[in-house]
Amino acid sequence: MRPAEDAYGEMMLALLDGRSSPEIVERDDGLIEAGNYNDVYMAPFRRWPPLNRRAMRFVRGRVLDVGCGAGRVCLHLQERGLDVVGIDISPGAVEVCRRRGVRDVRVCPIEDLDESFGVFDTIVMLGNNFGLFGGRLKARRLLRRFHALTSERGRIVAETRDVYRTDDPAHLAYHERNRRRGRMAGQLRIRIRYRLATSPWFDYLMVSREELEQLLAGTGWHLARTLDADDMYIAVIEKS
Amino acid sequence: MRPAEDAYGEMMLALLDGRSSPEIVERDDGLIEAGNYNDVYMAPFRRWPPLNRRAMRFVRGRVLDVGCGAGRVCLHLQERGLDVVGIDISPGAVEVCRRRGVRDVRVCPIEDLDESFGVFDTIVMLGNNFGLFGGRLKARRLLRRFHALTSERGRIVAETRDVYRTDDPAHLAYHERNRRRGRMAGQLRIRIRYRLATSPWFDYLMVSREELEQLLAGTGWHLARTLDADDMYIAVIEKS
Repeated sequence: MRPAEDAYGEMMLALLDGRSSPEIVERDDGLIEAGNYNDVYMAPFRRWPPLNRRAMRFVRGRVLDVGCGAGRVCLHLQERGLDVVGIDISPGAVEVCRRRGVRDVRVCPIEDLDESFGVFDTIVMLGNNFGLFGGRLKARRLLRRFHALTSERGRIVAETRDVYRTDDPAHLAYHERNRRRGRMAGQLRIRIRYRLATSPWFDYLMVSREELEQLLAGTGWHLARTLDADDMYIAVIEKS
Repeated sequence: MRPAEDAYGEMMLALLDGRSSPEIVERDDGLIEAGNYNDVYMAPFRRWPPLNRRAMRFVRGRVLDVGCGAGRVCLHLQERGLDVVGIDISPGAVEVCRRRGVRDVRVCPIEDLDESFGVFDTIVMLGNNFGLFGGRLKARRLLRRFHALTSERGRIVAETRDVYRTDDPAHLAYHERNRRRGRMAGQLRIRIRYRLATSPWFDYLMVSREELEQLLAGTGWHLARTLDADDMYIAVIEKS
């Protein structure tokens, strides 16, 4: 990923440098939105969203943080004395993690995870990072791989959003458009923009609980419990 | 302007409805930025930026507010008992003005101003609205027209930005690109985006004091004084 594509990383580097700005996300139907998540990206544990804090009770053993961003989860787990590896597709984000003190962090897209990373007890995907599963086929392929990469007591702690709980006509039309195209309704094709940088388009998957259980069926995983807050929820997924 | 183009107006309507979001502006070199000006758009006089408040001391007589947005200037001047007409190219913004109580506000691009509006003593262009002069030729043409549309004691109170006071490489490269193309360096070609709406591209002109004085030469106007704050300034322009 070239710097001109690493919009997310450039934004994280600027943030580390004290230059905060809203995060701009474009969807492939033309919808564009800017949100302020910067405070969360760099937040110490005590200032995390409550649901994220609760999720940490389910993290144990050797941990993989998928889409580690600016490293807040890695830093917290390191402090708790856990062995944690962070991965992110963004070279800029990985540089920010290193500068902030994350000990083991690597530039790696989720698709490239393999046995060379060793065995994990918990795989964490907070901040909507369940989305990195992308879509139905990719999710099921990756769930099977995660099964192979985790110990017997393996667990996935992943945050997503029940996007169907909306009455926004733009979102409802987008879900319908996805269904017509044979995609999952909450399979958002988006890209991130930061100043002159534009990320490649990527699929970011949001699922309801029912969809999640369907995705897990036959992968060796099951939904053990959810932690809920409004339309967001965190899934605690365990081996069957 | 169709609703799909009225990004600014859609944003103002949402804001009036309590849905605030950063304003997304795209420049034609690909730069995209999101800023939070919503508090200013709707602000009562006491919460305006200090420079804007000071500028009101120079407003007198019958007033035209060019690019009146959500109507904060019109509302303030009405309260002061002045006769004020607001114009804006955005139907959504004009609707917001009406709902907020602006008595005389019309959908009208700056190019369409003519004698039918009557004679004004002050023309106000706050919130960077000097930019609506667009470029060298359009600015000089409009300045001459403003001369014809104003009384003997006519005055223009316009806010702009000395964009050359920057060390940002993206901005410096953009200025240079403009110069190479025969445009004024601070002639920004931009568009506004709000959710699914995208405005047409338009030129928004930022000038230094020297450039401003060159633009005014021969139009019947001169720069009487400026009110300064960092790289922003408000020009008080009077008849020669």
